[in-house]
Amino acid sequence: MDFSSKLLENAVNEVSQLPGIGKRTALRLVLHLLKQPESQTLRLSQSLQKMREEINFCKNCHNISDTTLCEICANPNRDESLVCVVEDIRDVMAIENTSQYRGQYHVLGGKISPMDGVGPMDLNIPTLVEKAKSGKVSEIIFALSSTMEGDTTNFYIFKQIEGTQVTTTTIARGISVGDELEYADEITLGRSILHRIPFETSLKSS
Amino acid sequence: MDFSSKLLENAVNEVSQLPGIGKRTALRLVLHLLKQPESQTLRLSQSLQKMREEINFCKNCHNISDTTLCEICANPNRDESLVCVVEDIRDVMAIENTSQYRGQYHVLGGKISPMDGVGPMDLNIPTLVEKAKSGKVSEIIFALSSTMEGDTTNFYIFKQIEGTQVTTTTIARGISVGDELEYADEITLGRSILHRIPFETSLKSS
Ligand SMILES: [Zn+2]
Ligand SMILES: [Zn+2]
Repeated sequence: MDFSSKLLENAVNEVSQLPGIGKRTALRLVLHLLKQPESQTLRLSQSLQKMREEINFCKNCHNISDTTLCEICANPNRDESLVCVVEDIRDVMAIENTSQYRGQYHVLGGKISPMDGVGPMDLNIPTLVEKAKSGKVSEIIFALSSTMEGDTTNFYIFKQIEGTQVTTTTIARGISVGDELEYADEITLGRSILHRIPFETSLKSS
Repeated sequence: MDFSSKLLENAVNEVSQLPGIGKRTALRLVLHLLKQPESQTLRLSQSLQKMREEINFCKNCHNISDTTLCEICANPNRDESLVCVVEDIRDVMAIENTSQYRGQYHVLGGKISPMDGVGPMDLNIPTLVEKAKSGKVSEIIFALSSTMEGDTTNFYIFKQIEGTQVTTTTIARGISVGDELEYADEITLGRSILHRIPFETSLKSS
């Protein structure tokens, strides 16, 4: 693309760095901003910058939170002996939306993926193992999407906490195998948490 | 959506103000930025803000330009008696890409659309009429998309410059080069038959 303005070109180039946004879409978005009041672009850029600079993660579950301890971890009515292992905040939001779960979460920040260079030490796994060994946790629920990476991650954690008193379960596969958690409907997702099964049982069925 | 962080929520809300970007996509984009170095978000937000604040428009053709007169208008080899009327910078970029045009442009900034509250005075029409009356322009080429709004805009300008020595033309509508006839829409096919050109002329342009 041959731009008549360096200012425009820079903006389009930066926007098109975002996943799934090509040059053409980026240009459309940027031209839209030019037609809107200057204040809209200011709000957009400042909210992104502020978020990126000031973002904080809950020291217990590693979910995105504006406070040291997130609302869920700080809530005395949530059962801290029950820990649901998820990939990111979208999974927490999806499960919270079902109102079926009263335990806590542990946000890994991804899945083990040798292909993408993501190993166990790149994820929030050590603190989960620590939690399991603390004696305060009775059950760990695996709620990663059932892909090769998800299964690998579950199994790695399972081996790491072997020998502790912690029961490991996985959410029931009412959700189609391979589907992302965030796109599941509330009822299916809610049921799959209620009907979680022992992790060993899930190994036999795959 | 129920966010665990106000910082995250604000960023997602601002991103989802962009056309065609829903809350879910906005969240995906924002989470992507959180996984990238802080510098990427800084570059993105600063390039948008800088563009919005410092953007300039060519005083002759109204195209986006970093200089008072854009490169095309400042080029003495471009024929200033030939003016192609387009909606926005994307049309200029598309036509420039063909290397078939050696005249200048006039960027309207939109089309007349009573439904959207866009009247002739909201567009760069007065300066076009002025140009037509200056005696320096011999031909005005309408290159707006052939929608109701495009046709209305063309006709409005046509009436405004009636009585001047300026010839008005529109770009040819027809079947795309290489397209199968059977897949073309009726209106396009009909026009391409009505506006057929001498065979010898088609030989020269290929
Ligand atoms: Zn927490
Ligand atoms: Zn110009």
